[in-house]
Amino acid sequence: MGGDDAPRSVVAGARMAAERGVPVLLVGQPEQLSEAGGLEVVPASQVIAMGAEAASSVRKMKDSSLVRAAEAVRDGRASAMVSAGNTGAAMAASLLRMGRIRGVSRPAIATPIVVPGRAWPNVMLDSGANTECSAEWLVQFAQMGAVYCRDRWGVSEPRVGLLSIGEEAGKGSPLVKEAFERLEDAAWQTTAGAVFAGNVEGRDLLADLVDVIVTDGFTGNVALKTAEGVAQQLIGALRRAFDSSEEARRGAELLAPALAPLYDEFNPDSVGGAILLGVGGVSIISHGASSPRALANAIQVAYELAERGTVGTLRRILCSE
Amino acid sequence: MGGDDAPRSVVAGARMAAERGVPVLLVGQPEQLSEAGGLEVVPASQVIAMGAEAASSVRKMKDSSLVRAAEAVRDGRASAMVSAGNTGAAMAASLLRMGRIRGVSRPAIATPIVVPGRAWPNVMLDSGANTECSAEWLVQFAQMGAVYCRDRWGVSEPRVGLLSIGEEAGKGSPLVKEAFERLEDAAWQTTAGAVFAGNVEGRDLLADLVDVIVTDGFTGNVALKTAEGVAQQLIGALRRAFDSSEEARRGAELLAPALAPLYDEFNPDSVGGAILLGVGGVSIISHGASSPRALANAIQVAYELAERGTVGTLRRILCSE
Repeated sequence: MGGDDAPRSVVAGARMAAERGVPVLLVGQPEQLSEAGGLEVVPASQVIAMGAEAASSVRKMKDSSLVRAAEAVRDGRASAMVSAGNTGAAMAASLLRMGRIRGVSRPAIATPIVVPGRAWPNVMLDSGANTECSAEWLVQFAQMGAVYCRDRWGVSEPRVGLLSIGEEAGKGSPLVKEAFERLEDAAWQTTAGAVFAGNVEGRDLLADLVDVIVTDGFTGNVALKTAEGVAQQLIGALRRAFDSSEEARRGAELLAPALAPLYDEFNPDSVGGAILLGVGGVSIISHGASSPRALANAIQVAYELAERGTVGTLRRILCSE
Repeated sequence: MGGDDAPRSVVAGARMAAERGVPVLLVGQPEQLSEAGGLEVVPASQVIAMGAEAASSVRKMKDSSLVRAAEAVRDGRASAMVSAGNTGAAMAASLLRMGRIRGVSRPAIATPIVVPGRAWPNVMLDSGANTECSAEWLVQFAQMGAVYCRDRWGVSEPRVGLLSIGEEAGKGSPLVKEAFERLEDAAWQTTAGAVFAGNVEGRDLLADLVDVIVTDGFTGNVALKTAEGVAQQLIGALRRAFDSSEEARRGAELLAPALAPLYDEFNPDSVGGAILLGVGGVSIISHGASSPRALANAIQVAYELAERGTVGTLRRILCSE
C-alpha cells in the first residue's frame, strides 16, 4: 500500500517478480488489490501514510499493511518483506515485529551506490536509521555491511571504508577517530571476513576503492541525498541541452546507443532497494518513487537473501562477539 | 607557493588578474618566481607543503609564504590574500595573523555551489574548518554567510537553509534541532538582513531553494566532496561514452555548442574559491588544482570584497549582538 503510485507500481512489480518465479504475497486492502492477478493477498485494513509519524503509527495501526507484512515474516508465513512506503514506519514495523538480532545494538539502513564500470555497488550504511551513533555501532555496521556485500554480490573479502573528511587516520570528528581505532582491530575483520581499508571521503562514494562505506545515519543520509541531487541536476541539465536545438537533437540521437548503458548503470532501478540490516528477517525498503521494474528487482533480491540465509549468517557473526 | 602546479598556475593567474587591473603582490621564494612578469614579490623563504600538519607548520615556519601573506594583510600592505596551498595552513595563518573578528566564535569556510540556471550559487558553510560545532556557531555561520552572499552576489535578503535529513522542523541530529530553534529567532535575521527558510536536504545543495546553507564542518565537507565526486564520475562516464564509437563522436560534435554553456556552468573555475569568513581580513582558499583562470577569478573576487568592505560589515553585524 506504500509508494508514490501505490498500490499500482507495487502490484505491477510483484507480478513481474512472480513471472520470474518468485513466490509473492501481497499485503494490504483487498479492495485496492483487484489487479493482483492471482497473487495471494494477506488482508490488512489500515495504511500508514507516507508522511505519518513512524513509531506512533506502527504502535497504533496494528492492522496496517506494514505491520502485517512484518508479522508475516515473524510468523514464517513470508521469508522477507519489501516496502516502498513510509521508510521510518517500515523500519519501526520490522524492528518491533521481527526483533533485533542478538548482539546488534542498532539496525542500520544499507544503501547500494553505483560504482561506474564495476559489477557491484558500494554499500553505504547507516544511510538514515540512526541520526546519532556510537563508535561501537559503526563497527557493527561494518560487520553487517561486509556480510551483506558478500552474500548479495559475492565479494569474498569486502573492503570497508570509514567516511571522513580526510584520508589520514587522525582526520575527522571524535566519533570517526574512535571508530577508526576500533575498526583497525583484527578480531572483527577475521570474524566478518572483511578488511578495514581506512578512511574514505565524500568523493569516493562512487569510486572503486572499497566495497562497504560505514558512517552515522545523519552523515550517510546527507551524502546519499547529495549524490542523488547532483546526479539529477546534471542529468536534467543534459536533457535540456540535448533538446535545445535541431542540431543538438540529431547529436543526441547519434549518441543514444552509447548513452543507453550509462543510463542503465546510473538508474537506481537497477540496484534494487535499501535493506534494513540487524533485524530478525529480510526487510527491504525501496524508494517511494520506485518503478515496477525496481520493485521486481527488490523482491527478487529479498528472495535471494532469504534463500542464502543472510539473516542466519548475521546472527552467527554478531552473536559470536 | 601552494597548489598542485605551484608556483606556475598561481603566477599565471596573478598575471591574468593584473592584466584585468587588479594590483597583485606575489609572496614566496623570489628565485621560484622568475616569471612574475613585473609583479612585486614579497620574499618568503619557506614553503608549507600541501600535506604538512597545519597548526604546527604555521607556528614554526614564520618565514613561509602563507604566514607572510597573512601578515601582509594584517599590516595593511595587502587588502586580501588568496592561496591555492595547504587549506588547513592557510586557515591557521589567516586566523593567527589576521585574528578573529570580535564576536565570532569560530571562523568558517564558505564554499560556492553552482545552482544551474541561476546567476549566483548557493554558499555552504562551514565546509570544513570545524569538525564539531555548537548551535550558536551555526547561527553565526548563517549571519556571516548572509552578509557574504549579499556583498558578493547582490542578493538583497538571502534565504538561509539548515542542512538536515528531513524538511520538517523536528528532523535531524540534536545539534540541528537546537540550531533550528535558534535560527527561528527574528533578531539575528533582522540584524543580518536575512530570512531563515528552514531545513534543506542533501538533494537541495544545487537547488534554487535558498542562498546560504548552514552546517557543521564535518557534514559540509562530506556533502561538498560527495557533490564533486558524483559530478566528476558522471562527467567522466559521459566523456567515455562520447568517444566510444565513430557515431558517438559525430553526435558529440553536433552537441558541442549546446553543451558548452553547461560545461562553463558546472566548471568550478567559474565560481572562484572558498572564503574563510570570521577572520580580520579577506582570505580566499582556492582548490589545489585551480587553473590560472580560476585563480585570476579568485584574486578578482578578493579585490572586490576588499573594495566593498565586507570584513567591516561582518565586524559591525557580529559585534552588535
